[in-house]
Amino acid sequence: MNAEILTIGSEILAGDILDTNGRDIAQALAGLGITVSRRVSVSDHIDAISEAVLNAMGRSGVLVITGGLGPTPDDLTREGVARAVGVGLHLRHELVEPLRQRFRDFGFREMADTNLVQLTLPEGAEPIPNPVGTAPGFRIEHQGTVLFSLPGIPREMKIMLEESVLPWLSAHRPVAPIGVRVLRTIGIGESDLVHRFGHVFPELSDVEVGFYPQLPGVDLKLSSKSFAALDKAENALRAVLGRYIYGVEEEPLAGAVGTLLVSQGWHVGTAESCTGGRIAALLTSVPGSSRYFDRAVVTYSDRAKTELLGVDPDLIKEHGAVSEPVARAMAEGFSDRSRIEAVIAVTGIAGPDGGTPEKPVGLVWSAIAVPGETRAWRSMYGGTRDMIVTRSANVNVNRLRLMLLGEREIP
Amino acid sequence: MNAEILTIGSEILAGDILDTNGRDIAQALAGLGITVSRRVSVSDHIDAISEAVLNAMGRSGVLVITGGLGPTPDDLTREGVARAVGVGLHLRHELVEPLRQRFRDFGFREMADTNLVQLTLPEGAEPIPNPVGTAPGFRIEHQGTVLFSLPGIPREMKIMLEESVLPWLSAHRPVAPIGVRVLRTIGIGESDLVHRFGHVFPELSDVEVGFYPQLPGVDLKLSSKSFAALDKAENALRAVLGRYIYGVEEEPLAGAVGTLLVSQGWHVGTAESCTGGRIAALLTSVPGSSRYFDRAVVTYSDRAKTELLGVDPDLIKEHGAVSEPVARAMAEGFSDRSRIEAVIAVTGIAGPDGGTPEKPVGLVWSAIAVPGETRAWRSMYGGTRDMIVTRSANVNVNRLRLMLLGEREIP
Repeated sequence: MNAEILTIGSEILAGDILDTNGRDIAQALAGLGITVSRRVSVSDHIDAISEAVLNAMGRSGVLVITGGLGPTPDDLTREGVARAVGVGLHLRHELVEPLRQRFRDFGFREMADTNLVQLTLPEGAEPIPNPVGTAPGFRIEHQGTVLFSLPGIPREMKIMLEESVLPWLSAHRPVAPIGVRVLRTIGIGESDLVHRFGHVFPELSDVEVGFYPQLPGVDLKLSSKSFAALDKAENALRAVLGRYIYGVEEEPLAGAVGTLLVSQGWHVGTAESCTGGRIAALLTSVPGSSRYFDRAVVTYSDRAKTELLGVDPDLIKEHGAVSEPVARAMAEGFSDRSRIEAVIAVTGIAGPDGGTPEKPVGLVWSAIAVPGETRAWRSMYGGTRDMIVTRSANVNVNRLRLMLLGEREIP
Repeated sequence: MNAEILTIGSEILAGDILDTNGRDIAQALAGLGITVSRRVSVSDHIDAISEAVLNAMGRSGVLVITGGLGPTPDDLTREGVARAVGVGLHLRHELVEPLRQRFRDFGFREMADTNLVQLTLPEGAEPIPNPVGTAPGFRIEHQGTVLFSLPGIPREMKIMLEESVLPWLSAHRPVAPIGVRVLRTIGIGESDLVHRFGHVFPELSDVEVGFYPQLPGVDLKLSSKSFAALDKAENALRAVLGRYIYGVEEEPLAGAVGTLLVSQGWHVGTAESCTGGRIAALLTSVPGSSRYFDRAVVTYSDRAKTELLGVDPDLIKEHGAVSEPVARAMAEGFSDRSRIEAVIAVTGIAGPDGGTPEKPVGLVWSAIAVPGETRAWRSMYGGTRDMIVTRSANVNVNRLRLMLLGEREIP
């Protein structure tokens, strides 16, 4: 079954606030197996509201509206719905005394009669109690669509959603639940993913696959009504994607690397230049990171590279600070001095200034030292300073992951 | 003039992500004096996309679409727009070689031809360059509506909005401009801000003030059609807010501190425990940070605090790693060893584990050493691990700012 969400209020249209209500409702409905097919926001104008309601009626099984239920003149949802459904508004006398009592309970003085407009609901609507505020919501059915109107204040909306809307939908509009599984990838682009999917297409029947490109890589969201189909799809994708998959569900890259380090009994440290501490911050962003993270140094200046890591000043003079020999010397120097098993070293030009034709902005040399071996990489990253730093941090944490997994070829 | 925003993608409908693109576009258009009258989100289905585009055409002067421009089969915005506008799709041959070059620049291997679909634009559309990604956007006019189609990846969308869409609208759809000024505050809450506003209320006539609580503090957005009124309001607010204001417009806190350090001829370094390198990353997030940032150490283990900062092991044994004496010893030890003028040291319990009744999660001791003086602070932060780390990083960078400004009382 499909649902639509309509949020009413100028603050969302002006971009002053994020629409967390719409997000929360969508998540809650997804949990019931109801798919949201459309979200709309309009401002507090009666024409806009009634047109948006009218459009949704008959198109989807469920319409959830938030906002516009308060007592002020710009709260027009009740009127907009009544007009769209073609009914009048009536004061619900049975709700008046409980509302007066609510005002007394909240410690306010006697309720002003301006508040009664909140109790004026479309004919045929069923009130939805608001346990934490003054405006009730309501439910009304029309043209096969069930419409829920809830307040825009997030804490009121949420409690009414959970206590009234979801139970009603579970009881009256039961849907087979949808299983969801997220596989997190790194180091492989979207088009390459699609290409590999082609090899296992038959295994993905009955499974919907969503691609979510976001740092540090692309998340694959598998959805299906069949859990057996989910298992089959996951197995097939693991077979063709291998170590591009670093985690499932919410697992961060740092957590995946941390687990490998702990199982090996190793600690990691970082010796950073252009990344400015970002790799250390990434590795310590996970609870319990002290089990595998020991220390880091950020050596921005050449002098710091020499004093804290023992990099030979002549090496810097000869090759420049952004070079393979210096990256290797940073990793090995920190490894020697700190006696930490794994060290990630990074030196590069994050920009926007400081680039030259031979060493342009985005050039990053990195090295990873583990017992008995140091490997180095030259990479070019595009984009802003922040993107260069963020990407090189994630790419090098992933390189350590691949080394810990025993990969020989690491790009 | 009115505008509509259409975001395309199942991740918003599923509630997996918040629609920050819609928020950012709405804010940017408001800055040009263009009012957003409707926001719609639909999923990656050709019928839904083309219907949503068709509905908007002719209704508003501007339609901005985000999402669905990638190379995968569920990227259907190009087709949806072409169908709505009633034109065909054509490969833009002039864009092919630049895209192949972009792939090479990014260090990928030769571009797969599956990427060419991104260059297949509706007939009559003008491509919009994407300086940080592979999918171009496009602009097309139909029935008096100018339509912009941008990628859904926020950093790509943002740069194309700023570099192409807003300049085009300013040039071709000029509206009486609304002046906007942003004053960035730190260390003062919203209700306190409102209270201080009361003292200068008459100076704020003809100016609309928006409050945007976001890290590291609250941004105040002043909007007015009168630039004189903006100046008057800014002066009045500076008089009552003083050093709570650290910057204007987009200026980051690190930039404000960097400017003060450079003017003093000082460098800064950090000695971090619970913040894990986040303060160093913050201070180096600004272009040109090597003018004031020299080095940092992250000392997670007690041994690292001793080896890298010279903290006496007995001091740690006696007071614990999270204590005033250790915070001071970290700052002074790093200052002595590195000969850097300003050192920020932080040690605390970021959680979610590791708290005790005397030293609960969220307790952070910090110290700042400058020539001739070291000051220390005890702070308690609420929230998640990430919030504790982020807040303590920002608060301590701000403390350094206040010290550089010669403040005596620093909370």
